[in-house]
Amino acid sequence: MDTPLLNERDIEFLLYEFLDTESLLERPRYREHSREIFNATLQTARTVAEKHFANHNAKGDANEPRFDGERVHLIPETQQAWDSFAEAGFLAAHCDEEEGGLQLPEVILRTALAYISAANVASAAYPFLTIGAANLVRSFASADLKARFLGPMLEGRFSGTMALTEPDQGSALGDLRTTATPADDGSYRLRGQKMYISGGDHTLTENIVHMVLARIEGAPAGVKGISLFLVPKFLVNELGEVGERNDVQLAGLLHKMGYRNTTSTVLSFGERDGAVGYLVGEPHRGLSYMFQMMNEARIGVGMGATVLGYQGYNHALNYARSRPQGRLPSNRDPLSAQVPIIRHADVRRMLLAQKSYVEGAMALCLYASSLHEDQQTAADAAQRKNAAQLLDLLTPVVKSWPSRYGVVANDLAIQVLGGAGYIREYPLEQLYRDNRLNPIHEGTEGIQALDLLGRKVPAGGLAGYQLLQGAIRQTLVEARDCQSLGKQAEALEQALQQLDETTLQLMGQLQADADRGLANASLYLDAFGRVVLAWIWLRQALAAQRGLTGTLSESEQSFYRGKLQAARYFSEWELPQIGPQLALLSDGNGTPYEMEDAWF
Amino acid sequence: MDTPLLNERDIEFLLYEFLDTESLLERPRYREHSREIFNATLQTARTVAEKHFANHNAKGDANEPRFDGERVHLIPETQQAWDSFAEAGFLAAHCDEEEGGLQLPEVILRTALAYISAANVASAAYPFLTIGAANLVRSFASADLKARFLGPMLEGRFSGTMALTEPDQGSALGDLRTTATPADDGSYRLRGQKMYISGGDHTLTENIVHMVLARIEGAPAGVKGISLFLVPKFLVNELGEVGERNDVQLAGLLHKMGYRNTTSTVLSFGERDGAVGYLVGEPHRGLSYMFQMMNEARIGVGMGATVLGYQGYNHALNYARSRPQGRLPSNRDPLSAQVPIIRHADVRRMLLAQKSYVEGAMALCLYASSLHEDQQTAADAAQRKNAAQLLDLLTPVVKSWPSRYGVVANDLAIQVLGGAGYIREYPLEQLYRDNRLNPIHEGTEGIQALDLLGRKVPAGGLAGYQLLQGAIRQTLVEARDCQSLGKQAEALEQALQQLDETTLQLMGQLQADADRGLANASLYLDAFGRVVLAWIWLRQALAAQRGLTGTLSESEQSFYRGKLQAARYFSEWELPQIGPQLALLSDGNGTPYEMEDAWF
Repeated sequence: MDTPLLNERDIEFLLYEFLDTESLLERPRYREHSREIFNATLQTARTVAEKHFANHNAKGDANEPRFDGERVHLIPETQQAWDSFAEAGFLAAHCDEEEGGLQLPEVILRTALAYISAANVASAAYPFLTIGAANLVRSFASADLKARFLGPMLEGRFSGTMALTEPDQGSALGDLRTTATPADDGSYRLRGQKMYISGGDHTLTENIVHMVLARIEGAPAGVKGISLFLVPKFLVNELGEVGERNDVQLAGLLHKMGYRNTTSTVLSFGERDGAVGYLVGEPHRGLSYMFQMMNEARIGVGMGATVLGYQGYNHALNYARSRPQGRLPSNRDPLSAQVPIIRHADVRRMLLAQKSYVEGAMALCLYASSLHEDQQTAADAAQRKNAAQLLDLLTPVVKSWPSRYGVVANDLAIQVLGGAGYIREYPLEQLYRDNRLNPIHEGTEGIQALDLLGRKVPAGGLAGYQLLQGAIRQTLVEARDCQSLGKQAEALEQALQQLDETTLQLMGQLQADADRGLANASLYLDAFGRVVLAWIWLRQALAAQRGLTGTLSESEQSFYRGKLQAARYFSEWELPQIGPQLALLSDGNGTPYEMEDAWF
Repeated sequence: MDTPLLNERDIEFLLYEFLDTESLLERPRYREHSREIFNATLQTARTVAEKHFANHNAKGDANEPRFDGERVHLIPETQQAWDSFAEAGFLAAHCDEEEGGLQLPEVILRTALAYISAANVASAAYPFLTIGAANLVRSFASADLKARFLGPMLEGRFSGTMALTEPDQGSALGDLRTTATPADDGSYRLRGQKMYISGGDHTLTENIVHMVLARIEGAPAGVKGISLFLVPKFLVNELGEVGERNDVQLAGLLHKMGYRNTTSTVLSFGERDGAVGYLVGEPHRGLSYMFQMMNEARIGVGMGATVLGYQGYNHALNYARSRPQGRLPSNRDPLSAQVPIIRHADVRRMLLAQKSYVEGAMALCLYASSLHEDQQTAADAAQRKNAAQLLDLLTPVVKSWPSRYGVVANDLAIQVLGGAGYIREYPLEQLYRDNRLNPIHEGTEGIQALDLLGRKVPAGGLAGYQLLQGAIRQTLVEARDCQSLGKQAEALEQALQQLDETTLQLMGQLQADADRGLANASLYLDAFGRVVLAWIWLRQALAAQRGLTGTLSESEQSFYRGKLQAARYFSEWELPQIGPQLALLSDGNGTPYEMEDAWF
């Protein structure tokens, strides 16, 4: 493969220079680990990704799953991908050793999975969803359910899904209508239809474990009446033996623009006698359980979007270096040699923008994983709590920013290739199509924006928000000692202050009128994300400056110079766009809000 | 068809309130015409579009052209589309009556064609390219060539293409390598390969007329040695009889992300004895001839991008009005009814943004067509010259702005639909894929940017640029009398002044260092486009204010109010983004320019 999946040097930088992943080895859970083990894990992931996922990325796109009325057919390479992933132990890698896992830190697991997604995001969805579903079983299911379902999921015999959305309710989970009726044996019978269920049917595994949101008969209306159920495709007896088919039917496949090798399904539960389901945790608390999986999934979506952007950037960079075309404007000699297109200023601009998006997003996602890690294993209780609050605040940004700018990066990569970017003979157009899903699933951009402004920022008296302010100010203090980053630090400091003023104004607007106060939430999400990314880039620049000391090889110097230039680009080209955004927000601009239906 | 192709009321507004199309009837060429005839022509186009183009838009996408090694197969509906277009007389509609045309004004023709593109942009490409190629023959070919080729092209027996790009040269036309050797009979033998030739092979017509750029042996290097040739697929004798196959072979089809029912071809000329070609016009002047076709094609691309955006907007609007989901943030009662999603502020924002892009782009394209018209038929020589200069200046904007923001509009339309926007069961994802070609073909966005800043603005001592400034100032004077547009006029006046200062600075930067001075041309193109569109919107707002006087039906009032709100949106949300852009340009920001290859 000519084009690398990611950039090894960048990953090393992010894990060990931008983040201090090595310090995890001091924590009791990771005492048996070492940096060599982490690296070997990533090497395994890379090998699995290159050998068993990258090999059929284009083929899976061109030959999407089909349903013959009886069963779903996937190209056979998908099975090999699933098997190799499971055999490498990645389904259980983050679990404790006593659970049969590798006790791997979250940040290493997520980096490993990033290689898999970069190779084939559609085939990666099956194991990724299974990890999420298994985590729900692991956290909330009874010992009996765990005994029957968790082991096979971690081993790769069963796969998992997350069945929330219904045809009539879309993003409004509170309105879901699937019902659950108690049966005599303590189980439930589910009836209803779910839509856009990824991995909802296939024959990769002996069984599929659907984690289904439904309403127990008589439950309160809205989100407070939703419970979580485990509904297997095939029933499993107490001995763990897989038996007859449950009453879950594939009503049909949906045909997506991209992500094609992931089945997207409409599932009918209980069209005959009711689908057998088992309550997970307590009644009516399903949404809060599901949010654990959704938050994990949201960070996963951010990472998936990032690596699709990253792949596109790698391809565009290779192409720009090797494709001769035209001359610089100052050269009027038609007999002179053509230059590689990377010598054209506009191509460099497009590549630098991509670099700032994808390496920025990768740093953001790994930082989020490190918060998730700290939330679980930091020594100090206050540190664990702070990490949880910060992660909670940042989750909408981690989900949406890479999704939005990952697509922008792919768009720019297509543009670098020109005509070649538009045809299926090159991989760019598929990356663009695949990535377009990410601003939609696991909560659209609009949903993330409402979550950030309406919930996460005001939460706990702006507790998480103030933690973020503190963390950014800490970086600004560090940057003060580094003269060459002075202008960037100043720009970030000003931006932070402007964001802060606007945020306080918005809190007032929200209290006065919730509908109007939230009307421009998407704009706030984008401005907020720009400030967070400018901070992430300043932190990367500080790490690069530290790396630049001492005697270095030319390639090491170039690597750090590239980081510094991308940080500078972000500060000069991307951050200032918050100016007009915050002005609209501060004014409580009502032009879209006041637009009437009849005027369209 | 539930979703209208365009919006009849908007078209009427643009032609007769925003533009003064009726005044064309005073010009000698249009004396026999009337507004009724114009409307009947548009009605015919709409009928052809709905009946023969819209019917297979999705089918052509799902069943793209294939080449069996002998011939190219298209779905049969494509033939019916071609035939109905030709039978309606649209191939020759703009020609004089004595040429067999309808003597139709440019702006009416382009509006008619907009309906066809909105219905099926891929099938529309065959006749559209033929109109462009026929115009080249009509303007520059000898009487003999016209006698043999022009008539059949206008009747629809022959189709046309535009064969510029080669595999190794891409956008750098000066480096093209196809050669032309004089033969004894006065014709030439062409040898070389052309790539990305749309409509380069098919069996819709008896013959295909390729307008090919090539270099006569011994010609000067670069763009000054390029000549234009007419190269038919089948030879045609002096009697106009179609004879044997010329030495032009289809080397293969390219497989695009969208626009699939348009064949995109690699053509080999002269692999056997040389392809017979006929020189059009004088030797070495081919590029200037071809620019006539390219400029037409560029406006056509802008219009195509506009109507794909428009279609997406129409679909999204329908969906948002009919799809109930969720409640307003202030409503905490889960038992209350769900609201149509258009009631959600963020959905209205996305719809209003789309409206501002697509109706703005449509107004811009029709304005460009009116300039094209004035260039040909205005009574006054000075008016004709001014129109030509203004159109020359605006062509890169007319090509690139609708292309860029048409894709953005489609992206927003997908987002309004959510999951439904991403699946092929709905038409949005195809529109998005189709539209993504437009920032690439007929000169990429980067090429348009260099053209604007490096050529069109400085041309003739900023002559066209000053005409535009004058035209905008004229609108500002008109707006002064209209109190409710005061803020918008003020914003535009300030923006114009800032643009002007930056432009003069850039002219200095260009003279000092062409490479560095042009490095941020794409940013300039976007800022320039925003100012032009803000002007176009202010003109629409003025027309809407005029319309609002007197007693009006509710729907008429709503229409004008919508125009005013979209103009306000553009002024408040889109125009201010030039602030950070012009700051970077004024400073001559060198961050992307100074980025080194090794640092990526």
